[in-house]
Amino acid sequence: MIIVMKKSATPVQLEHVVQKVKDLGFTPNISRGVEKTVIGVIGEEGKVRVESLETFPGVESVVPIEKPYKLVSREFKDESSSFKMNDGTIVGGKKVVVMAGPCSVENRDMLYLIAKEVKKSGATFLRGGAFKPRTSPYAFQGLGEEGLKYLREVADEVGLQVVTEVMDTRQVEIVAKYADMLQIGARNMQNFDLLREVGISKKPTLLKRGLSSTVKEWLLSAEYILSKGNFNVMLAERGIRTFETATRNTLDLNAIPVVKSETHLPILVDPSHGTGRWDYVGPLAKAALAGGADGIMIEVHNNPVDAFSDGAQSLLPEKFALLMAELKKVAGAVGREI
Amino acid sequence: MIIVMKKSATPVQLEHVVQKVKDLGFTPNISRGVEKTVIGVIGEEGKVRVESLETFPGVESVVPIEKPYKLVSREFKDESSSFKMNDGTIVGGKKVVVMAGPCSVENRDMLYLIAKEVKKSGATFLRGGAFKPRTSPYAFQGLGEEGLKYLREVADEVGLQVVTEVMDTRQVEIVAKYADMLQIGARNMQNFDLLREVGISKKPTLLKRGLSSTVKEWLLSAEYILSKGNFNVMLAERGIRTFETATRNTLDLNAIPVVKSETHLPILVDPSHGTGRWDYVGPLAKAALAGGADGIMIEVHNNPVDAFSDGAQSLLPEKFALLMAELKKVAGAVGREI
Amino acid sequence: MIIVMKKSATPVQLEHVVQKVKDLGFTPNISRGVEKTVIGVIGEEGKVRVESLETFPGVESVVPIEKPYKLVSREFKDESSSFKMNDGTIVGGKKVVVMAGPCSVENRDMLYLIAKEVKKSGATFLRGGAFKPRTSPYAFQGLGEEGLKYLREVADEVGLQVVTEVMDTRQVEIVAKYADMLQIGARNMQNFDLLREVGISKKPTLLKRGLSSTVKEWLLSAEYILSKGNFNVMLAERGIRTFETATRNTLDLNAIPVVKSETHLPILVDPSHGTGRWDYVGPLAKAALAGGADGIMIEVHNNPVDAFSDGAQSLLPEKFALLMAELKKVAGAVGREI
Amino acid sequence: MIIVMKKSATPVQLEHVVQKVKDLGFTPNISRGVEKTVIGVIGEEGKVRVESLETFPGVESVVPIEKPYKLVSREFKDESSSFKMNDGTIVGGKKVVVMAGPCSVENRDMLYLIAKEVKKSGATFLRGGAFKPRTSPYAFQGLGEEGLKYLREVADEVGLQVVTEVMDTRQVEIVAKYADMLQIGARNMQNFDLLREVGISKKPTLLKRGLSSTVKEWLLSAEYILSKGNFNVMLAERGIRTFETATRNTLDLNAIPVVKSETHLPILVDPSHGTGRWDYVGPLAKAALAGGADGIMIEVHNNPVDAFSDGAQSLLPEKFALLMAELKKVAGAVGREI
Repeated sequence: MIIVMKKSATPVQLEHVVQKVKDLGFTPNISRGVEKTVIGVIGEEGKVRVESLETFPGVESVVPIEKPYKLVSREFKDESSSFKMNDGTIVGGKKVVVMAGPCSVENRDMLYLIAKEVKKSGATFLRGGAFKPRTSPYAFQGLGEEGLKYLREVADEVGLQVVTEVMDTRQVEIVAKYADMLQIGARNMQNFDLLREVGISKKPTLLKRGLSSTVKEWLLSAEYILSKGNFNVMLAERGIRTFETATRNTLDLNAIPVVKSETHLPILVDPSHGTGRWDYVGPLAKAALAGGADGIMIEVHNNPVDAFSDGAQSLLPEKFALLMAELKKVAGAVGREI
Repeated sequence: MIIVMKKSATPVQLEHVVQKVKDLGFTPNISRGVEKTVIGVIGEEGKVRVESLETFPGVESVVPIEKPYKLVSREFKDESSSFKMNDGTIVGGKKVVVMAGPCSVENRDMLYLIAKEVKKSGATFLRGGAFKPRTSPYAFQGLGEEGLKYLREVADEVGLQVVTEVMDTRQVEIVAKYADMLQIGARNMQNFDLLREVGISKKPTLLKRGLSSTVKEWLLSAEYILSKGNFNVMLAERGIRTFETATRNTLDLNAIPVVKSETHLPILVDPSHGTGRWDYVGPLAKAALAGGADGIMIEVHNNPVDAFSDGAQSLLPEKFALLMAELKKVAGAVGREI
Repeated sequence: MIIVMKKSATPVQLEHVVQKVKDLGFTPNISRGVEKTVIGVIGEEGKVRVESLETFPGVESVVPIEKPYKLVSREFKDESSSFKMNDGTIVGGKKVVVMAGPCSVENRDMLYLIAKEVKKSGATFLRGGAFKPRTSPYAFQGLGEEGLKYLREVADEVGLQVVTEVMDTRQVEIVAKYADMLQIGARNMQNFDLLREVGISKKPTLLKRGLSSTVKEWLLSAEYILSKGNFNVMLAERGIRTFETATRNTLDLNAIPVVKSETHLPILVDPSHGTGRWDYVGPLAKAALAGGADGIMIEVHNNPVDAFSDGAQSLLPEKFALLMAELKKVAGAVGREI
Repeated sequence: MIIVMKKSATPVQLEHVVQKVKDLGFTPNISRGVEKTVIGVIGEEGKVRVESLETFPGVESVVPIEKPYKLVSREFKDESSSFKMNDGTIVGGKKVVVMAGPCSVENRDMLYLIAKEVKKSGATFLRGGAFKPRTSPYAFQGLGEEGLKYLREVADEVGLQVVTEVMDTRQVEIVAKYADMLQIGARNMQNFDLLREVGISKKPTLLKRGLSSTVKEWLLSAEYILSKGNFNVMLAERGIRTFETATRNTLDLNAIPVVKSETHLPILVDPSHGTGRWDYVGPLAKAALAGGADGIMIEVHNNPVDAFSDGAQSLLPEKFALLMAELKKVAGAVGREI
């Protein structure tokens, strides 16, 4: 870290800070300038309580230099990561994975109908919520284990992998029993106990970005999972919260190159939640693919008007089929497959 | 709700929407204007999936009108709420409650020392984290049950109430055993399973606002707790995430009058987390009090430089004492006590 | 507009509002529900001071329904607009326009060198600042008229159109003399006097989105220009301000489909300013193109390290050439040319 | 500044950067750590194009250390500034200045009526817009010079100072002729030509913070004015743009202690624009005062329902009188007068 002293700092104050740095086991390196003095402190910052140094008299600011994450970083592993699902699907490879399905599992019939359609169009994962995080306690909260069973049965019949959300530490075991990939939702990105349990489970995991999480915080949440020995993590950008209300969230495609330069983990983009409107899903799915995404998640519903949740952002199966045809062209233009 | 039809909507499209509204059990009320037609739909919106109507051809937008929360609203209960703690302290009364203590419980001695000081200065609650939500998996995660024991023992010796965070559904029972008031942290404001468990526990609860949560979402999270029969809820504003980086968060004091006009629940302000800098805590604590807060939470540490967490935002006990004297004057100026 | 009455509103309060609506020349349409009463007011809202009605006793909220802009809207003109530059270049056509060049015009030689290179790679506009809006009064403020002359001369020699920023009403005449297209920068998006002057000038105009402007406000700023008779306006998304600091701004590609659905005006995307880092420009330029942008603006500099401004976001001419080759492929995949 | 090299940086890359630093006229100070090397560069950063160094191979990031502003900083002038108006009113003294009046000047009679009332209640400045920045080209744009005349005449009759907005460089002369203090609105905070002209005019100036401006950018805009020799500047916090829509803007009271620690300039708070609702003005005016504001600006209108602009945020004169009585008590509690 770099400690910047105030212009008005006295020699005694400087000495006081230098001594503290030494007490912490580091070698300070002092640069005296015409106006200000800075102290370079090189070492493993994780072990020091950096911010506290800001309370020392004479200190103007403390600037961290080391990256706070290790296992997820490109510095730890330079080559991009990929991992293989049960059915051989590679996540993070040349072929972009497509996850599609309804927001909520409503019943077995609708799920089967949608699953068959998205499989035909080229999706490899079936998505659908059995446990639903809902802003209001009075909204539909999901079918629970019944929904998980439908997901498993339908996916097996049709030939898809199951990705579904786990909301609570107590649900990890049961969701892991039915699903191929666990999803951690945006609201739980910093539910640290849940991250730890999912890490211990070793299940492939899709980690959604929190609504107001920086990429740095997102990677630190992934670090929680990797630090428990689970390296099968895919990141999912699904829109951040900004002042703009024309879309439900602001899908942040800048995150793609940022993530690619910071971490070896693959990244998926979810334009359905990102925008909240089905007619914006197509342009942003294509944009995400052209921008380098390793996966796309799209909500598909056979009857959006009667959907139990998020109907406004769901594509009809036939529109999804058309979009997939367009995505194939874009994938080809950027050296990928779909 | 109000359904606004596009200028280009056809009579058939209008009829289609009207029929759907009737199918949902409502009576539509059509206003035809020179340019646009709107359909007024009065009723309990909670039961309808409002957004889905936006997918109908010819519909421009759907505007909700009913408030999504019930039990927390001023419409449900016009008079401001208050509740009594075990020791008789009233939360939400004329006397403003002050919660003070270290960010983390580090050991019994420091906790006792700080508790004695803040009690002397007029605090009524001892705060301190035993389970700590930390952005990095490598940071100090709290003493766990040992920390809870220290909190209970010290608070009893000194004569304070204990407020401390519960992070996971599996911890509710044990935290409730030691604490007088459960705290739900900003990162867990939408951990809906946790909200439900805390509701069931019936323990007095301090519900912190999420970093990027609107007041509406915050009240809906409180609604989760009240809907389980627990009305002893105090809201806590602790800063929101904005573009400004001069402070760690942007303490949103606008939330005080907004909350006061929307809900009967009392509100506390936490300027320590809100700003992240001890020298900003005083001005904003005074501002919060003058603006109508029912409680103030302040981090106090006897040795901020060596604090295990958040040292930069902690006041020394002697500075806290001086601030309390100033707060008493401000309280008097706005018809409150402290 | 829709006026929502409070649950507690009295009949007298309702009557009071209804009378006011009539006084304003509208016909109110009352919908009485079980819980709330709403008043539909259909008409030209532009003429009414909508917000003031919120101050009436008994009124809960006033919801605007009419779009605040007219000439820029799809309701006014359904077909997408395009316009022709002096050299026959069509802005808003099948062929995507590419604007490239240095951030600031530094001298004639560098400008010529860069212009020749970007022309060769397929750019049709030369960009470059002669008047520079700089956050600090001590930063390089641009060459002024000298810079404009260089732009004109170099563009004529090489065969490009000139787009450059005008910052002040007093500069409109001189910038219009040298440039083919006037640029209004993000910081001036709501400099209403400047918008009016640029409208009067009738020059093709590139209107950048303000750092914290909603799409609605952006379109209202365009409306200022169109309302003075200048319909040759292209919108430019260049990043908005959010909490994320990994990129200088958050390039908002959601704006492409939003703009396309709301207005007939063409839209350009500027990934250089949007991200602030040259290595993120390529992925986001491709994303913008795949998402439907009608134009791309990219900063190119032959010596970014010594650039007078924004070197960190500039591509070297050879990297720009490679990117253009990639962009051609993406354009083809989405039915466009470049 | 501090240049942080990548872990993977080669000795040649390091040497390359070091040489560049020397070429720029600085003495580099190298700290080699176990993992990373950093180069301390002490000197006047204003003269260097810091960001460009980020483009050097091997460089991870460049961290600025010097403050970008000079004349406005506490380092330049430690003591808080104040200045005297024509009538002897001190801005920045123990006595808090109160500016009150309508949003827009609508006619002479209403202005006189309001001015008389606010004077009686203790205001020292009359505010009111003659040139109005309006989001829509179809909204009331102000009375122009006629409005300025009314302001001058009424203020002189009643005994108040005039503060009013100047929107364009071409208006500076005429506004300066009639007003005692020039106001630069939020939308023009980075209209750099306007800042320069106002600096040259030497008139007392109220500089509003831009909707999405950091405190640092705000101070740099003030620096533009001071750098032209005009030190009579008061800053005005009037709400920033965040994700929260419960208030029109988010009044950022954190800015008070931040500004107080960074600059010697006085600061005013405008809760009327900050919240957009008259019933929130009182609590936030009291909060601002308790938090250390040197001035308060409040919109007052005798007939908010028929106001030409911003009626929803205006207080009736009698409510303003009651609020002033409350503000006097709060001022006393924090050692100020009003």
